[in-house]
Amino acid sequence: VTPDRPGDSPLFDTVALFGIGLLGGSLGLALQKRGLARHVIGIGRSEAAMEDAVELGLVHEATTDLDKGFARANLVILCTPVRHILQVLPQVVHRVPSGCIITDVGSTKASIVARGNELTRGTGRIFVGSHPMAGSEKSGMRFSRADLYQKSTCFVTKTPETDLHAFAKICALWTALGSRVVITRPERHDRLVAIVSHLPHMAAVALVRAVAATEEDKNLVRGIIGNGFRDTTRIAASSSAMWEDICADNAAEIRSFAEAFSRELEAVMAHCNADGTIMKDILEEASDYRESLDQR
Amino acid sequence: VTPDRPGDSPLFDTVALFGIGLLGGSLGLALQKRGLARHVIGIGRSEAAMEDAVELGLVHEATTDLDKGFARANLVILCTPVRHILQVLPQVVHRVPSGCIITDVGSTKASIVARGNELTRGTGRIFVGSHPMAGSEKSGMRFSRADLYQKSTCFVTKTPETDLHAFAKICALWTALGSRVVITRPERHDRLVAIVSHLPHMAAVALVRAVAATEEDKNLVRGIIGNGFRDTTRIAASSSAMWEDICADNAAEIRSFAEAFSRELEAVMAHCNADGTIMKDILEEASDYRESLDQR
Repeated sequence: VTPDRPGDSPLFDTVALFGIGLLGGSLGLALQKRGLARHVIGIGRSEAAMEDAVELGLVHEATTDLDKGFARANLVILCTPVRHILQVLPQVVHRVPSGCIITDVGSTKASIVARGNELTRGTGRIFVGSHPMAGSEKSGMRFSRADLYQKSTCFVTKTPETDLHAFAKICALWTALGSRVVITRPERHDRLVAIVSHLPHMAAVALVRAVAATEEDKNLVRGIIGNGFRDTTRIAASSSAMWEDICADNAAEIRSFAEAFSRELEAVMAHCNADGTIMKDILEEASDYRESLDQR
Repeated sequence: VTPDRPGDSPLFDTVALFGIGLLGGSLGLALQKRGLARHVIGIGRSEAAMEDAVELGLVHEATTDLDKGFARANLVILCTPVRHILQVLPQVVHRVPSGCIITDVGSTKASIVARGNELTRGTGRIFVGSHPMAGSEKSGMRFSRADLYQKSTCFVTKTPETDLHAFAKICALWTALGSRVVITRPERHDRLVAIVSHLPHMAAVALVRAVAATEEDKNLVRGIIGNGFRDTTRIAASSSAMWEDICADNAAEIRSFAEAFSRELEAVMAHCNADGTIMKDILEEASDYRESLDQR
């Protein structure tokens, strides 16, 4: 890949991407395309997948050997589901050189940032949490796109002990990848994504289950679902490994917002009757609010 | 508009479209483009809108005068929200010539078909209920497209007293417009759409309300919502006039499926905790089922 800005010096020398799926693979492409790293190393568990990653041009080099992969990294980006990020963090910290920044793309932040801070404290290695909201219901390195992060939102977390230089570099990285950076405390991040991402996912799953539980013929259902149902439940087809970890790690926030959602649904259904007067207001308010969310 | 099949004789001579919004306007374009009607008349309440409809080429002729609009019709298609279809039906039946077929595009069918059958019984006029599932969150005649009905599902209802010749012509009409016709009893239609369309809409409305009710800053929320939330709640931005009628007319079926949905959400949330084992199965099942719905 020829970088877009060959004149500039790259933001990072060697970047190690741990986990090459849709998010890691797209990062590899984007880092190269935008000239943000001189050298990109992919690290993963499967030899065959690592060969594919190089062949697809996602990374310059790929390995299954953690020692080899992390030894020269100036930046590590952990691109696996949440639980695996938590598990691998200790193995990363003692393998990377001093001064190395470690970040991640995990969908929850409180537990990952707490662990990252704890493990790097006093080691000369630095942890900064990230969460690019750029996935889709597709997963796997073959869907990688250099523009995956463009125009998407990326959270970067800040705590009282966050190193400001590393923090600035991570903000610069996501900005250079085309993301809108939103800075929050990790706990606030987890509440916000429970609202705009995790509970909507749970609602889609519950809707799919409710349809599956009816005694209607599946072929008939398949024939009659329209764009409304397709849109509403699309995210339910997402990677279950990723979502399993999200639910386990962010259960408290998700459950709390699930209660708020159930109360609203009950309130709406209480006005679902032959007298449509109040329902009219409910529908208009929701329509106006939803439309206002699309305006930028 | 030059018809696609100028050699064939049209399925209908004069078609009157009552209500020229997205659905009526698109029907006008499609009937002309496919050569299914020799003459298409638009009927509406606003003089200005009727002038626009002719200018936009949606219909050959348009009027606000019901007598004039219905007098020569061989087919009437009622393209307004449900409540208005119910209100206007008596005025249509005694204005159309004997042998005229009356159908509609209403989102509910039990009450409309019952009323249509009752009013036409013994009059020589014939009612057949239709419901093309082809709307979107956009409404208004300016969004009209000749291909709106293509590849969408259209319900045509059948009751013991449905006239078979008229029924066959209505099935042929939607098929010629590119829809997949699904034939059901009106009551079964209402249950099916409560499942795949009406309750998903209510869930989207409840989700939008729950987000609006949080104390999070609206600009922040707007900045962080991703494709998942956008997809899940898109339908909440739909025409509230149309949905108000749907909720009033199909309340019993919607409420019944809302209970099933709430039970499923509760079941899912009961497994949203640090031990992800059962959640993993729930997510996988939902993902598989949702994916299978996209296969044709």
